[in-house]
Amino acid sequence: MAVKEGDFVKIGYTAKIQETGDVFDTTDETAAKEAGIHVENKSYGPIPIVVNGGHVLKGLDEALVGMEEGEEKTVEIAPENGFGMRDPKLMQLIPMSEFRKQGMKPEVGMAISSEGTTGIIRSISGGRVTVDFNHELAGKNLVYDIKVEDVIEDDVEKVKSMIELHYKAPNLDSDKHDIQIEDGVVRIAMDEMAKFDKQPYMDVTFARFRISRDIWENIENIEKVEFVDVFEKKVEEAAEEVVAEEVAEEVLTDEDKKE
Amino acid sequence: MAVKEGDFVKIGYTAKIQETGDVFDTTDETAAKEAGIHVENKSYGPIPIVVNGGHVLKGLDEALVGMEEGEEKTVEIAPENGFGMRDPKLMQLIPMSEFRKQGMKPEVGMAISSEGTTGIIRSISGGRVTVDFNHELAGKNLVYDIKVEDVIEDDVEKVKSMIELHYKAPNLDSDKHDIQIEDGVVRIAMDEMAKFDKQPYMDVTFARFRISRDIWENIENIEKVEFVDVFEKKVEEAAEEVVAEEVAEEVLTDEDKKE
Repeated sequence: MAVKEGDFVKIGYTAKIQETGDVFDTTDETAAKEAGIHVENKSYGPIPIVVNGGHVLKGLDEALVGMEEGEEKTVEIAPENGFGMRDPKLMQLIPMSEFRKQGMKPEVGMAISSEGTTGIIRSISGGRVTVDFNHELAGKNLVYDIKVEDVIEDDVEKVKSMIELHYKAPNLDSDKHDIQIEDGVVRIAMDEMAKFDKQPYMDVTFARFRISRDIWENIENIEKVEFVDVFEKKVEEAAEEVVAEEVAEEVLTDEDKKE
Repeated sequence: MAVKEGDFVKIGYTAKIQETGDVFDTTDETAAKEAGIHVENKSYGPIPIVVNGGHVLKGLDEALVGMEEGEEKTVEIAPENGFGMRDPKLMQLIPMSEFRKQGMKPEVGMAISSEGTTGIIRSISGGRVTVDFNHELAGKNLVYDIKVEDVIEDDVEKVKSMIELHYKAPNLDSDKHDIQIEDGVVRIAMDEMAKFDKQPYMDVTFARFRISRDIWENIENIEKVEFVDVFEKKVEEAAEEVVAEEVAEEVLTDEDKKE
């Protein structure tokens, strides 16, 4: 059955810049190593997305529609369906004196950060430095080799796929998530390890919101998603010990505060 | 009805060092100001505890048993039921040269921190500095004026009181917690604001564990506590906007990572 908008799929891909043939992104570890863009500790392999869910480039979403499970395809993606056109306004002239003030010696090709965005120094002349704040891939024609590895049919597996996509925590075991769907409500009790996440609670909330939104927009009749952390009177000994130690520390801290 | 072990109560107190009469802790804002120990932005007023739950000094837990709601009482607490006896081993001699190495000029009465504990410099002589790592109130006889402000009878209110005790977040509205108790399970959906807590998820987990433990140890027939974060398809506009903005930012960040 052909892939359509709103389907949950797993895709593998390798992406090149058309002009140079340089591989800039891939889900395949071997291809990443060959291209010299391999990242240590990154988990490679097919990634779960919702077709037309905005999780990948527009051109990729469009290419997936109509493909069959297992099918491979090579697609060309123009800048407007890729990383956008180049914007001349994002080429900025910065006086050399600004760099000196910060003790920096600008060189062509050097990347600099300003207010959260990154630019590349393109040229230096007459005391002025031209910095390009366009996305590195803006204006490029891209070539994607894509494969639809899996079309996910089961609702519980669809939920798990969105947790995998949005919840970046390396130690979570997808098989340990407990997911119940009943009366329009998805109830998610994640792998216990998720309780010990060190990232701010708020960031977890944003990930959960994205998971929830993808679920209710793409699985029929779902109106509500609940994330549940369960604490039971009889817990595994190991977990209890870990928590007990922490509690001991916290109690000490509280007592100190009493002074 | 007299207060007994395991009761959920709200208590007010003002605590003095017997010898000097100095107030070192109080739940009363006016008393704190008079004693010169007022802390800006701290919320004063009666605090919820479980009697004999280890939330307060042993001597205080003991004094509460048998008191009536509304009753006031003054109790003397000996060091062994207060902050403990003084331990001579916690008086440490540190060579003056150690302080010089760190560019510090020790003075009697100065507080110094070492490996997470705080000590007070008691004396300096012959190139040696005596630092006292005993708790400031160790060895002191204490006098507590206590009042049992409230004995909490309702189970939902008991749960709320433990959230108030263990979950330090200034912007939470206790009236907005949704608490359901059914079939031995307490289900807690906290005030929506809790979702936007900036502290690490793990720290929230430890607070939740303490809340849960106090609940199942002191409310009959409770075996399980669930903390639930709900995400609904139709959310209030304001909240949706906040999240949408953050999502936009995060998407940008994700795209940057693709490079």
